[in-house]
Amino acid sequence: MTGYTAPSTGRAVRAVLFDTFGTVVDWRSGISSAVRAFAADHALTLDPGAFADAWRTRYEPSKELVRSGQRPYVSLDILHRENLDAVWRSHDIDPGAFAPGELTSLTAAWHYLPPWPDSAEGIRQLKRHFIVGPLSSGHTALLVHLAKAAGLPWDVILGSDISRAYKPSLDAYQKPAVLLGLDPGEVMLAAAHNSDLAGARRAGLATAFITRPTEYGPGQVTDLAAADDWDLAAASITELARQLLDDPPQDERRE
Amino acid sequence: MTGYTAPSTGRAVRAVLFDTFGTVVDWRSGISSAVRAFAADHALTLDPGAFADAWRTRYEPSKELVRSGQRPYVSLDILHRENLDAVWRSHDIDPGAFAPGELTSLTAAWHYLPPWPDSAEGIRQLKRHFIVGPLSSGHTALLVHLAKAAGLPWDVILGSDISRAYKPSLDAYQKPAVLLGLDPGEVMLAAAHNSDLAGARRAGLATAFITRPTEYGPGQVTDLAAADDWDLAAASITELARQLLDDPPQDERRE
Repeated sequence: MTGYTAPSTGRAVRAVLFDTFGTVVDWRSGISSAVRAFAADHALTLDPGAFADAWRTRYEPSKELVRSGQRPYVSLDILHRENLDAVWRSHDIDPGAFAPGELTSLTAAWHYLPPWPDSAEGIRQLKRHFIVGPLSSGHTALLVHLAKAAGLPWDVILGSDISRAYKPSLDAYQKPAVLLGLDPGEVMLAAAHNSDLAGARRAGLATAFITRPTEYGPGQVTDLAAADDWDLAAASITELARQLLDDPPQDERRE
Repeated sequence: MTGYTAPSTGRAVRAVLFDTFGTVVDWRSGISSAVRAFAADHALTLDPGAFADAWRTRYEPSKELVRSGQRPYVSLDILHRENLDAVWRSHDIDPGAFAPGELTSLTAAWHYLPPWPDSAEGIRQLKRHFIVGPLSSGHTALLVHLAKAAGLPWDVILGSDISRAYKPSLDAYQKPAVLLGLDPGEVMLAAAHNSDLAGARRAGLATAFITRPTEYGPGQVTDLAAADDWDLAAASITELARQLLDDPPQDERRE
């Protein structure tokens, strides 16, 4: 094991941190399931996948208000809850018709999302030689709940409530490196979103693209391939682990 | 599994956080080994255990300067390094005689300390039902290195560089609870030091005493038993796990 040096930074990677929603967990399936159950409980007719998409579409604009300084940092629990009300209204349903506790419970579905099939195993393999953790817009409590429910064996969880910044703000990428005692170039972001990797590169991190072609459902048209010369690109976290661990196929090994 | 309610707080415990130096890892054995190797390399005659004790004795006074506001927060890497110079001088040895890199390496021994025999297994058992993590004066990078080397399966690592406070400051106990989305009474501190538990109780946390009768070597006279009515007291982390998981002995189980 000689270690992996990232071409873009010229540094040996010591920590591999992961975008989480979409890259490690399948938010659309998880949220669709929770919305389907909620709709059944309330005898509502709606398309759970479309509802999940509508909820997610409001995610970036709501974080932009924090990034731009128009509102102080608030966690995704607050943003998701506000955005949920807006989605109900866009369905011509008054959110005031539901008990607030029910809407809070539905919002908590973002804490308990299913992992992609390769996520836990890929992280476990990487953990042998790298520090592994999320680098997400999620806050620490959400990421802890997500990891325990999905069996993600992170070494460390540093949520957005520690940097109090949302990606692609520089602080969101650089604060975890500081807390790990590393230079940004010793940290790699693995993400399924080209825009996130662009932000990581601006912040000095190494980058790896993970293809998640059904994150947005069967008709996905964005982020189907790496859009820039990221340090690595892989179809799964286990494939990323193989690349980073530089494990040659059995028949190429010298005995 | 009905959960454990702490008598002192009346709340169900959701997270069990651990003092680390002395409670989870055996700093005296680890530091003695590193000092013994360093002394051999430099043909120095000294008692490694006594040297480790002298280094540790300077720990609380150096943190007190931060707690009292006489100096801004600096990490244990800085404090341990300064204290090492002082210990050399107390041995009539000029620390300037060594290459700075050698002293930095010796200081890094605090990142790689052996666990007590029950630590990893006890944490693994607790992790099934509780959030587990350190609540230590160590900074995040140190605690990550310690966990990976000792195989401690923490869910989350929030070092003192996040609260920028040293125990027993209230912030040091309460900031992790905030980041975990918990009230202080839902968090239990497990520690081998009565004074640490007193600080945790003042901050509103539940408390568990773990007996570590040889932390300070064979002649230890302090912290041999619980000095107050802490919520729990156990001889090991595995015994604490049995108490918290409320697992009745096999022959008492009703089929």
